[in-house]
Amino acid sequence: MLQVLDLFGVFVFAISGAAVAARKQLDLFGALVLATVTALGGGTLRDVLLDRHPLGWFGDATPLLAVLAAVLLSVLWCRWRPLPRHALAVADAIGLGVFCVVGTRIALEAGQSGVIAVILGVMSGACGGLIRDVLCAEVPMVLRQDVYATAAAAGCTLLLAMDRLAVAPGIGLLAGGGLIVVLRLGAIFCDWHLPRFVLRGEDD
Amino acid sequence: MLQVLDLFGVFVFAISGAAVAARKQLDLFGALVLATVTALGGGTLRDVLLDRHPLGWFGDATPLLAVLAAVLLSVLWCRWRPLPRHALAVADAIGLGVFCVVGTRIALEAGQSGVIAVILGVMSGACGGLIRDVLCAEVPMVLRQDVYATAAAAGCTLLLAMDRLAVAPGIGLLAGGGLIVVLRLGAIFCDWHLPRFVLRGEDD
Amino acid sequence: MLQVLDLFGVFVFAISGAAVAARKQLDLFGALVLATVTALGGGTLRDVLLDRHPLGWFGDATPLLAVLAAVLLSVLWCRWRPLPRHALAVADAIGLGVFCVVGTRIALEAGQSGVIAVILGVMSGACGGLIRDVLCAEVPMVLRQDVYATAAAAGCTLLLAMDRLAVAPGIGLLAGGGLIVVLRLGAIFCDWHLPRFVLRGEDD
Repeated sequence: MLQVLDLFGVFVFAISGAAVAARKQLDLFGALVLATVTALGGGTLRDVLLDRHPLGWFGDATPLLAVLAAVLLSVLWCRWRPLPRHALAVADAIGLGVFCVVGTRIALEAGQSGVIAVILGVMSGACGGLIRDVLCAEVPMVLRQDVYATAAAAGCTLLLAMDRLAVAPGIGLLAGGGLIVVLRLGAIFCDWHLPRFVLRGEDD
Repeated sequence: MLQVLDLFGVFVFAISGAAVAARKQLDLFGALVLATVTALGGGTLRDVLLDRHPLGWFGDATPLLAVLAAVLLSVLWCRWRPLPRHALAVADAIGLGVFCVVGTRIALEAGQSGVIAVILGVMSGACGGLIRDVLCAEVPMVLRQDVYATAAAAGCTLLLAMDRLAVAPGIGLLAGGGLIVVLRLGAIFCDWHLPRFVLRGEDD
Repeated sequence: MLQVLDLFGVFVFAISGAAVAARKQLDLFGALVLATVTALGGGTLRDVLLDRHPLGWFGDATPLLAVLAAVLLSVLWCRWRPLPRHALAVADAIGLGVFCVVGTRIALEAGQSGVIAVILGVMSGACGGLIRDVLCAEVPMVLRQDVYATAAAAGCTLLLAMDRLAVAPGIGLLAGGGLIVVLRLGAIFCDWHLPRFVLRGEDD
């Protein structure tokens, strides 16, 4: 189940990469590069930090094929009609939900403490999109949008709590991931906001 | 002593991250994310390059608590009054001094040669702030300001020289780190500059 | 031969870093930092992903000396006259060609599959320049220019095909690397383009 979810996350994050490429007027190969780093970046960083070698996509070509399929699908769709409004944000939300809980689960199974598992989960989910935005010279979504890191942390914490309460892992994955997706979609479509604790700038 | 210094460096770098977040009008969670990557980024990169696993902050929650404390303190301060002028630059200078010498020391103790120890020290000190600036879509301080990489390299080299002369490690740490902080503060407040070797651009 | 080629790649990539530093009006130390990350970034990322420790430049100071030599040479040249037109793009093209085939070869010798070897080759070649451009807050060349990732992938694939056909490794390295350099120089001087599969933006 972890593998199926992970593959699904790779697929939707690759779509978000292709959508950014479309917005930035990149060509097919640029879209492929951007989709690949978006889809594999977060998990690769998590595995390097955890010293989990060899990396998942080294021994198994399926994630790479999922990226390829997502890009081709995006390109074919774009030939036919424009990408739907919010395609980028929705794909990013689903990918975030999936990768956050998968990352938390993997860190727990690697014997990490709860706090670290949540941090590595948020990192797995957020870093692919972060690299995508940095490469396009934009301030990353995770810093710009308020219900983002908060949503990711909430979902990972829910998964952790259900793990501690000995709920079946599958249910924890669905509940935690679902919470993240719902919070993100609420932020996108219903304009949910956190009370802002704006920091005042320097006195100069 | 290495651990106490390291924790202090984490704390002040987290403050510099929060100060950038204030300048960029990020909210509390954005500030927390930015402070965390600033405070832990340089040391994590150093440990990954040295293959030192597990990473320091995996087994010990103190660095994460130091980041949290630094962000909360910055937020409380900002509720009361604006951040002092140069808060960002001074916090960055102190963090740079601390992380540079700690990184050099760790690389020496890992059996690396002197040149590599100096490079890894500069990297530990400079990369946290570099990631912070890249995430905010700015050219990093280490490239923009001239007495920065130079100051870092000078302090690391001083530590190395004192190590080779068999001075007690604690004295080397204080002398090297102190030199970096003094050079950076001089650059900030007294407008110290290096003679510039400006490279002329392309002939087009 | 792999080591000589690698050193040559380090040298030309360091020149490309110094050329960007000249364009951005950085000083000598900024140029040194930028040249170092450009020259060593791609290979370091490849080795971290492959878990090849210790890193090549840890035990051997030659790559660092090559970077130093490249920066000093660029600075001396700039004192005398402006950098030639296209110096940056040509240095980048040669560095790309060298690092792509060296990276593919190393991945093959580490026992990776053909697809992974090509991806790691492209990554070794493209990531140094990518980090250079991100640090200067620009969209990386690999995303902006169309005959770039394509050229890199073509050369790595040629090397792979010749390896599978049991051609001597040295010939594969030269043929693959040569193909990349020729394609890039064609793109720079003869304005070669790929048919563009432009993705249409979101409908909003």
